[in-house]
Amino acid sequence: MNVRLIFKILGYILVVEAGALLLPLALALYCGEAAWLSFVLVAALCAVLGFSLTRLHPGRRYMMQGRDGYLSVAVAWLGLSVFGALPYVISGAIPHYVDALFETISGLTTTGATILTDIESLPRSVLFWRAETQWMGGMGVLVMFLALMPRLGDGAIHLMRAESPGPIKSKLVPKVGQTAKILYGIYMGLTLGETVALRVAGMSWYEALTHAFTTLATGGFSVRNASIAAYESNAVVWIITVFTFLAGANFALMYAALRGQWRQVLRSEELRLYVLLLVAAVGLVWLDLSVRAGVPAGQGFTDASFQVVTIMTTTGYSTRDFALWPTLSRMILTALMFVGACAGSTAGGIKVSRLLIHIKTLRRDLGRVIHPRHLSVITMDGEVVDEGVVASCHSFLVAYLLVLVAGTLVVSFDNLGFEASLTASMTCIGNVGPALGVLGPTGNFSILSIASKLVLALEMLMGRLELLPILVLLNPATWRDR
Amino acid sequence: MNVRLIFKILGYILVVEAGALLLPLALALYCGEAAWLSFVLVAALCAVLGFSLTRLHPGRRYMMQGRDGYLSVAVAWLGLSVFGALPYVISGAIPHYVDALFETISGLTTTGATILTDIESLPRSVLFWRAETQWMGGMGVLVMFLALMPRLGDGAIHLMRAESPGPIKSKLVPKVGQTAKILYGIYMGLTLGETVALRVAGMSWYEALTHAFTTLATGGFSVRNASIAAYESNAVVWIITVFTFLAGANFALMYAALRGQWRQVLRSEELRLYVLLLVAAVGLVWLDLSVRAGVPAGQGFTDASFQVVTIMTTTGYSTRDFALWPTLSRMILTALMFVGACAGSTAGGIKVSRLLIHIKTLRRDLGRVIHPRHLSVITMDGEVVDEGVVASCHSFLVAYLLVLVAGTLVVSFDNLGFEASLTASMTCIGNVGPALGVLGPTGNFSILSIASKLVLALEMLMGRLELLPILVLLNPATWRDR
Repeated sequence: MNVRLIFKILGYILVVEAGALLLPLALALYCGEAAWLSFVLVAALCAVLGFSLTRLHPGRRYMMQGRDGYLSVAVAWLGLSVFGALPYVISGAIPHYVDALFETISGLTTTGATILTDIESLPRSVLFWRAETQWMGGMGVLVMFLALMPRLGDGAIHLMRAESPGPIKSKLVPKVGQTAKILYGIYMGLTLGETVALRVAGMSWYEALTHAFTTLATGGFSVRNASIAAYESNAVVWIITVFTFLAGANFALMYAALRGQWRQVLRSEELRLYVLLLVAAVGLVWLDLSVRAGVPAGQGFTDASFQVVTIMTTTGYSTRDFALWPTLSRMILTALMFVGACAGSTAGGIKVSRLLIHIKTLRRDLGRVIHPRHLSVITMDGEVVDEGVVASCHSFLVAYLLVLVAGTLVVSFDNLGFEASLTASMTCIGNVGPALGVLGPTGNFSILSIASKLVLALEMLMGRLELLPILVLLNPATWRDR
Repeated sequence: MNVRLIFKILGYILVVEAGALLLPLALALYCGEAAWLSFVLVAALCAVLGFSLTRLHPGRRYMMQGRDGYLSVAVAWLGLSVFGALPYVISGAIPHYVDALFETISGLTTTGATILTDIESLPRSVLFWRAETQWMGGMGVLVMFLALMPRLGDGAIHLMRAESPGPIKSKLVPKVGQTAKILYGIYMGLTLGETVALRVAGMSWYEALTHAFTTLATGGFSVRNASIAAYESNAVVWIITVFTFLAGANFALMYAALRGQWRQVLRSEELRLYVLLLVAAVGLVWLDLSVRAGVPAGQGFTDASFQVVTIMTTTGYSTRDFALWPTLSRMILTALMFVGACAGSTAGGIKVSRLLIHIKTLRRDLGRVIHPRHLSVITMDGEVVDEGVVASCHSFLVAYLLVLVAGTLVVSFDNLGFEASLTASMTCIGNVGPALGVLGPTGNFSILSIASKLVLALEMLMGRLELLPILVLLNPATWRDR
């Protein structure tokens, strides 16, 4: 293990955070909000501490190994969270540090669960910072760092692997830094596109940009108390539906589309299953709403489409209080929270591609009952999936379920009901945002105990980083063997 | 595929069922109940049909393969269920056939979920048949057949494997028929022991025997409307707790204990984890009941112990309406429904040994992050677990989850609430019995739609046979390739 290298990288990340704090600072100065001081203080702190850490010399053992990559990412995200929470406390927007930490981690991990009861009472600059944390966390802070400063050499791929979601990790182009630039380029382009579209649909520039930030990150923080229900405009609802759908798709496929390689896009098995699941879920929720709740067909279609897309992409906006929907609709939304959207997107959950690998493995095992001596490989988009990837998908599922259950048990002790407790854990590890029951879209995570808030925040980090970095950090064996 | 052999085995099983029907027939004649006629008719039907099928000549291809074993078990269990439901309908005890089928499958699979609203209004002989189906299904009907008629040769091991629960299947002694006899011997001994104990504690012989039947099978059908709460006796509660615990332990270990091999028993990792989970769950439920529901300490300990043991062993008796318990207690019971008890017992769920293999695989994968080139095997009780077993455990988990979710979605359309729908599917695939919410211990499965009842009955069969036999039966590829 190379502790100095890990802290050196933390240093770079804190400098990135200091830079990110300049945007809300500028907005605070422009709007004349008192919160400007908190941004100056925290940016200065991050900059000083960050620059000091970058002076560390990792020694001759500069080679980064897999473990160092995971630990760097875990430490960097913890650092980002701990310092990112300070502006909320210093500005007085969120008085308690644990609440501020919960809100920051919920932001960075693009979860979108909130402890705020009156969002609109907060200064604009603070809400901008809240939305910006989601945008930064969406594509990844270390990926941003690699795009800005691609000089880590061979070690860079370990950082990118540890921060990017999905079972199979490949570079778009041979160079990691170049790959990071392409990803951020697409991300920025889509953000810009949605901002303009929402502005045209009637939002102010401020509202359009913050919502574009939290849509593309599949985060779901809104600057309005009523979330998207505040905008009584079908245009806004459908613009957000389309961009959330895109944010849940694999960015590597978008790059292929941009280069005109449509065949690659259309034959993507993950994309097909993603669309299939969305269509099936919208159909069933639409049916359930009309049969069990008597919702008119047109409205039912819009509601079902918006909520299914926003939940499956783990964004978590709401236009309806779906915690009051009939049982089947709630159950489908919960199942979608678990699955999430595509690998290589900004979404959470276990990812559609892992579901696909699980189904293919199961089908192979059933086939072996018929032909016991038949050897077969699992393929994805025509390419063989390494058996190591298949095995790690299974371990991932086991770890995901164990963390999910452990979190649920902790939250259950708050005695807020079965549905709320289970879905609170589900929504946090899946980086979705709202849960069901009393923690639904009109509910609020502030009613939870401190223990529950901390455990749920840890689940968000585990979900965003796909478990391994945090599990490696928490594994005693990692520290025994130095 | 050897269709004739499969139907020949079905023939033998129907003859076994005809024999089993003689017991309630005798009781009906003894008590002078009109239901005797229904038992005579169905026994005659099973005997005639069964003997005819046993005349089938499987041809020269007498060798049984893995697939034929799975299909034989699936077809035999479907046959047992279809004919076993007839006495309920003919005697008028359960007027609708789907309800009778649900009750029969719930019996044979040792689930214990019921559609009956007033159990005590039924004839004693019918309730005896209901308890007997659980006892037959507990250790396995094909295992019983192998004990009675051990002349299938090499094929017998395939039948035993397909019907017995657990990831690793081994014979106790080299001969399959002998193994089956030993298992049934222990099963009968324990049943006799509990019957005497319950008689001494104050039950009638009839009540003692039927409850011993359903305890040892981890079934949970009671002849009383109030289940075990009908007996206001701590002795009854603790006798049942102890025997349910034993029924959830591996019968192979009991055989070892009987031969004085205590070292083997004490070093069993599965037994240790089983006890550890029980103790932890009792402790947490006890704490939750006292903190959140103000239950006095002594009563809380008895209640927690009884319900935790009866749910984890997938028996499903009740002394309290645990659907009204605080959130953490309900969540723990739900998690235990999922896990179930030990392999090689009469319990359902995924089994403690599979959980153990999952945890060990996960630990191995985390270790590989530290030492990427380190190769390691997974061991259980000091013996290496074959990687094929590890892989099949993972496929089992995936299939279990997919069936669980599919069942939940079907039941959800009945709109009975999130908690009731999810736990209904969980309790049926885990062969537990009661669910939570409106389907809790004081609730009733008769309120479900026909579609839900059929799907839940299918889940019970899948859970009891550990998925593969039914999945092989339903897999179109099985039938394409003859």
